[in-house]
Amino acid sequence: MHVVTTTSDTSADNVTSGRGETVAPPGYELSDLPGPLDREELETLDAWWRAANYLSVGQIYLMANPLLTEPLAAEHIKPRLLGHFGTVPGLNLVWAHANRAILERDLRAVFVAGPGHGGPGPNACAWLEGTYSELYSAISQDARGMRELFHQFSFPGGVPSHCAPETPGSFHEGGELGYSLLHAYGAALDNPDLTVFCVIGDGEAETGPLAASWHGNKFLSPARDGAVLPILALNQYKIANPTVLARIPESELLALLRGNGYDPVVVGGSDPTAVHQAMATALDTALDRIAEIQHAARLRHDDQRPAWPMIVLRTPKGWTCPPIVDGEAVEGTFRAHQVPLSAARADAGHRTVLEQWLQSYRPQELFDPIGHPLPQLLRLVPPGDRRMSANPVANGGTVLRDLRLPDWPDYAVEVPAPGATTHEATRVLGGFLRDVTAANPDNFLTFAPDELASNRLQDILTVTGRDWQAQIGEYDEHLDRAGRVIEVLSEHMCQGLLEGYLLTGRHGVFTCYEAFIHIVDAMFNQHAKWLDASSRVPWRRPLASLNYLLSSHVWRQDHNGFTHQDPGFLDVVLNKKPEIVRVYLPPDANTLLSVYDHCLRSRHYVNVVVAGKQPQPDWLSADEAATHCARGIGIWQWAGHNDDPGSTPDIVLACAGDVPTLETLAATSILRERLPQLRIRVVNVVDLMRLQPRDQHPHGLPDSEFDTLFTRDRPILFAFHGYPWLIHRLTYRRTNHAGMHVRGYQENGTTTTPFDMVMLNNMDRYHLVRDVVDLVPELRETAAGLRQDMTDARLAARDWTRRHGEDIPEVTQWRWH
Amino acid sequence: MHVVTTTSDTSADNVTSGRGETVAPPGYELSDLPGPLDREELETLDAWWRAANYLSVGQIYLMANPLLTEPLAAEHIKPRLLGHFGTVPGLNLVWAHANRAILERDLRAVFVAGPGHGGPGPNACAWLEGTYSELYSAISQDARGMRELFHQFSFPGGVPSHCAPETPGSFHEGGELGYSLLHAYGAALDNPDLTVFCVIGDGEAETGPLAASWHGNKFLSPARDGAVLPILALNQYKIANPTVLARIPESELLALLRGNGYDPVVVGGSDPTAVHQAMATALDTALDRIAEIQHAARLRHDDQRPAWPMIVLRTPKGWTCPPIVDGEAVEGTFRAHQVPLSAARADAGHRTVLEQWLQSYRPQELFDPIGHPLPQLLRLVPPGDRRMSANPVANGGTVLRDLRLPDWPDYAVEVPAPGATTHEATRVLGGFLRDVTAANPDNFLTFAPDELASNRLQDILTVTGRDWQAQIGEYDEHLDRAGRVIEVLSEHMCQGLLEGYLLTGRHGVFTCYEAFIHIVDAMFNQHAKWLDASSRVPWRRPLASLNYLLSSHVWRQDHNGFTHQDPGFLDVVLNKKPEIVRVYLPPDANTLLSVYDHCLRSRHYVNVVVAGKQPQPDWLSADEAATHCARGIGIWQWAGHNDDPGSTPDIVLACAGDVPTLETLAATSILRERLPQLRIRVVNVVDLMRLQPRDQHPHGLPDSEFDTLFTRDRPILFAFHGYPWLIHRLTYRRTNHAGMHVRGYQENGTTTTPFDMVMLNNMDRYHLVRDVVDLVPELRETAAGLRQDMTDARLAARDWTRRHGEDIPEVTQWRWH
Repeated sequence: MHVVTTTSDTSADNVTSGRGETVAPPGYELSDLPGPLDREELETLDAWWRAANYLSVGQIYLMANPLLTEPLAAEHIKPRLLGHFGTVPGLNLVWAHANRAILERDLRAVFVAGPGHGGPGPNACAWLEGTYSELYSAISQDARGMRELFHQFSFPGGVPSHCAPETPGSFHEGGELGYSLLHAYGAALDNPDLTVFCVIGDGEAETGPLAASWHGNKFLSPARDGAVLPILALNQYKIANPTVLARIPESELLALLRGNGYDPVVVGGSDPTAVHQAMATALDTALDRIAEIQHAARLRHDDQRPAWPMIVLRTPKGWTCPPIVDGEAVEGTFRAHQVPLSAARADAGHRTVLEQWLQSYRPQELFDPIGHPLPQLLRLVPPGDRRMSANPVANGGTVLRDLRLPDWPDYAVEVPAPGATTHEATRVLGGFLRDVTAANPDNFLTFAPDELASNRLQDILTVTGRDWQAQIGEYDEHLDRAGRVIEVLSEHMCQGLLEGYLLTGRHGVFTCYEAFIHIVDAMFNQHAKWLDASSRVPWRRPLASLNYLLSSHVWRQDHNGFTHQDPGFLDVVLNKKPEIVRVYLPPDANTLLSVYDHCLRSRHYVNVVVAGKQPQPDWLSADEAATHCARGIGIWQWAGHNDDPGSTPDIVLACAGDVPTLETLAATSILRERLPQLRIRVVNVVDLMRLQPRDQHPHGLPDSEFDTLFTRDRPILFAFHGYPWLIHRLTYRRTNHAGMHVRGYQENGTTTTPFDMVMLNNMDRYHLVRDVVDLVPELRETAAGLRQDMTDARLAARDWTRRHGEDIPEVTQWRWH
Repeated sequence: MHVVTTTSDTSADNVTSGRGETVAPPGYELSDLPGPLDREELETLDAWWRAANYLSVGQIYLMANPLLTEPLAAEHIKPRLLGHFGTVPGLNLVWAHANRAILERDLRAVFVAGPGHGGPGPNACAWLEGTYSELYSAISQDARGMRELFHQFSFPGGVPSHCAPETPGSFHEGGELGYSLLHAYGAALDNPDLTVFCVIGDGEAETGPLAASWHGNKFLSPARDGAVLPILALNQYKIANPTVLARIPESELLALLRGNGYDPVVVGGSDPTAVHQAMATALDTALDRIAEIQHAARLRHDDQRPAWPMIVLRTPKGWTCPPIVDGEAVEGTFRAHQVPLSAARADAGHRTVLEQWLQSYRPQELFDPIGHPLPQLLRLVPPGDRRMSANPVANGGTVLRDLRLPDWPDYAVEVPAPGATTHEATRVLGGFLRDVTAANPDNFLTFAPDELASNRLQDILTVTGRDWQAQIGEYDEHLDRAGRVIEVLSEHMCQGLLEGYLLTGRHGVFTCYEAFIHIVDAMFNQHAKWLDASSRVPWRRPLASLNYLLSSHVWRQDHNGFTHQDPGFLDVVLNKKPEIVRVYLPPDANTLLSVYDHCLRSRHYVNVVVAGKQPQPDWLSADEAATHCARGIGIWQWAGHNDDPGSTPDIVLACAGDVPTLETLAATSILRERLPQLRIRVVNVVDLMRLQPRDQHPHGLPDSEFDTLFTRDRPILFAFHGYPWLIHRLTYRRTNHAGMHVRGYQENGTTTTPFDMVMLNNMDRYHLVRDVVDLVPELRETAAGLRQDMTDARLAARDWTRRHGEDIPEVTQWRWH
């Protein structure tokens, strides 16, 4: 088949109006420029590219008349034009060439579209590959389906303008920019046969997370992991500005990429033949190099970090769109970023040029009369799962294997009596996670921002090392080319790599200082939205949950000071859909074990577990912990008055979190000694969601059970790990919410001691006892002495701390029922 | 004066225990290695360095016996050893050499300490410079003051382990890592005579924000701005791991830095003389180059971006600390990161080595018998404000000038009647900000992540351009070497640069899409903590407020879909101290003007203003807006029943935010038509803090006024911009909180239309009318028809949207009192 010349003289059709000339794209001919592609390959690739571009323009503009079988009319044009065309031709070009490579090399590959609102491209490619029609039968591979594909795009009830859970083959949401390369690296980990084509927008490349993520190659093992091929789409513009990377000399750009450990090849130009030949050359070179790297690592056991190949793709913004609109240059400028012809519905001139633009892709050479792609095009579709739009790893739940979990009670600490012993809860958990790591050597990873040991999980390092592909120094410890822990001082990288790992069907844990998890608030938001939206996409399967272990928490950052004290991540988390989010506050080592075992078995949640790393009393045996955690909330009869749920206490002392539990039980012991007649009920909350009404969260206690635990009318003194009003929020609809008095973190902090921290926020045992005296009417007069003693005790503790620099030695005599 | 050899044979004093040998540092002699420093300069610099190191070790370990006038005993050692020594010698080295340069070149300079918990270094230098004693008279420049300096460090009631508001000369908090270079660049903007020495830890360099911030040089004008000299402290280790940048070949590291636009010089080694000479050479070269760059730009008007000099300082972690502790290598390894001798209080062996370590700095050659620094040292102290510890820009409030503000009513839109006209509120504000920009050409900047025009502030670009020091392409618009707008697609960079600008005494605005402001949650937290803590440091002066303008908000991101919809930043903000945070939700253009005028005049707050960019009805004239915003909350009598605060309505319809206000007023119009006898009160809230009790926020309404507005017992239907329960939180202690029913964003969203968004979240006018019928007991039976009509209207609107892809044309007939 020979090249067909397109619109011979588009200039005759130029549209002028008061706003200036609007010019349709002239179309182009393929030339005989030499290169690795023979004529047929060149034509096939170009046909794919034109087809995908046609389908992309169609998605942006059309709600009917998909094959232009009748003259384009206003009613065929969508009333609101959304999606960004600027980046689309680059995405489609990469997809087409990736397909050639997949077919030639039998690659298993996935595609990550970093640039924002470029959804039309991957949608188009998935439709050409037939996957769209397999997953959405109404969107068939014909004119009727094409019309649906166009109509639904960015239309009410349809699909978003960026890649999303609805997009076949996508595991990366393009809504908030910056995470494409992290997701790509996360997908490649433990997927030795996978190639990830990751297109990074040059706008996105300005973000902090993306800038950090180039270093993902320091953690990618050529032996164990797959390959990531970054393709920097350098089309020069973001919404309204040029990009930084497009406005530095190419020598500087290449130095930057080399400095990040890559061996970049530049593919540039605006002549399609030249770019096709150059892209094919670059891709062949890159994939040959990847094969060599993997061969060397896997067969010759070369363990030196290679310079991984990457491609810089320097093509015009909005390539192939109208060069001039209303007298202003569009193609190749920032004006091509979004929608080049914004008035196509109302303005007949714009509409004429739109039709010419669509025709410039020569649809009659791409689709048969019923709208099915022609055979030449389909030659570029890889078979079955080899299609990037159908790779099962992009629908991670389909390849997810359950973890092999040891029995957590085997790791439980002995608890001869409540409070008789102490343990560092996270260190105990570390033993369990050590064996989880060992038992699941290819689908479980732990991520930490240089805080694994600080958070007391270092037992994991007895069975593996820290993944490290860079140089290893004489005094470096636990670095391991095949390590199962990834530590890098970037919460963004930890979160992004873990997300990529989970989204492609594996399991993992992210342990972080509590205050600094706010660094990834936005990433958490986006992941929670993905989980929520994907749960409504019928062909998506549930993923392993995203498990946080937040330690070095607000109450034990006394030494690091105010900057390190912030329990507000819980508030961010609880803004997301209740179907997705879970928050656990285990009060001791055994409950932490039980909770974590549960989290590792769960699916499609974000589990936030907050637990301390400092020695804290043990309260519950393994059996008791199992029961208590299964309930998520419960009366600790041994700690309170001998009451059953049917009786009525004078006051309920509730607690959630390890330090609040400690202070509550210490207060209880004081009360038991000083006011033995007072009927106290102690309620401990592990699963924070139990507090919510059942109609607001699936874990919510029925109102009757809540009332039984908390009474309908007695005062409740609730010591809480986080900001106090979160408890008010959760219990707002409960009968006794007016009786709820919450102590928690009041944003008072400094460099001091642990006990001073609880005193600064009025959550210490002495203050709790004072609160009890204030809340129980009968005590206000009879227990005035006790109240004064508590005030004195606080002053003494404060004074001791100021003078000695440490807490007054603890003298708590636990007094249980 | 000649070099004195220290501890002649420390090996004889080696301490061994069951845990292995512990070796004191051997001390060192300066050599005659050639270099730019003559003997006297070399000795002076080294003496400063030793003195600062001595004072740093003292801060970490000692609570008494500061000059070692008696043998070191357990009671001299702090019970808890905090602060990280590992990075301190590097910080002190840079400070000493910077002082030499300041004196030689009469520089005005400030110091940014990026590495975490390195506070002892800058504290020590500030004490040597006398600033500490000037600001804290009890910490005098003698043994008594030295003891106080030591005692207070990381001690209850004392100062944090990192640089903090308490630290003289610091405007950068080192608590959460990643922002040092952004703060440095922010400080340099519009400070043409300033040199910022910015030490970046190689751990910090792994963070996303830091990785992005190297590109700060693309926005630093050599003509208009000062200079930033980045010094990458490559001491190889973070807490438990080597750093990435220390484990790549030096050629790769240099390529990375060159690719980021720098001309790096490496200073490396562990021999003090060699490092001193090399550092002096590097600093001279760098500062000569900076002078050349500035000369070329300012006198020869060279406007090409230069390669700015920077220094890579490759010295041992914990340099000069004990080389071996308990048989394990410490100096130069990750074990030197924190506290090298952790058992110094309890273990006599450790204590002996600690004493030897302190003596290795030869304190008798540094301090006179009463503890005052010797004259040789003081020769390195710059005069007065030239001391980095005393530079007024580091206490920004002292150099802050009020903005010249035009009269905002001059920009107000005409409002012939409520709802009769529409405007894009942020576009109106843009006109005001344009003239603010023009009137304050050297101390006001606007920051945006490529969203200035998208958020409709482009009028600013009629008086200035976007700051851009990189190349300018043929089709680039509004780029300007002296631009007063900084756009970069990194919320981290926008926030960090603005923080640095504010912290050094200037004014600015950050405009951002509402959902993506979560990207800087953690940075906001840290800045709010700085404001809070600094307000308790008597010598700190109030700063200009950090002003956010959040637009493209949750209700108007229908087209961009679920990922772009998140109003949760308000919840993060309200966790911080009420003295610091303000949230404004102006309902229209004129109220936005009034609010922003107020924000730009305010001091030491974080002002969050949320306002839409889409055409919305105008409600209030300039005069009415001024009154309403001054009150922050009020009854809109024209919109409700003719009621005064003394009367009793059947229901209160409250609203906060532009879209909630629109829907509330539309519901009111429907109710007025259909139920003319219903007594409705409309309350609009601009200042969200008015809802809180007065004892919880300074803006809080007294309970009596709240009750007057909201009644004590009538139902309240509150339409709110954000997540609904925030209103419950704020009004939790109010009399009528049980009557409060809130509509807001329920995390329901997708790609759809604006009106569908409010319907999806049950905040649309029809649902509000239904709510009124449900909430007013008398209406439940009498208005069943109205309720059904509203249901029908919702279904019709939904159906129209799904079929036409746009909202049903609005037919609201405003019916006012």
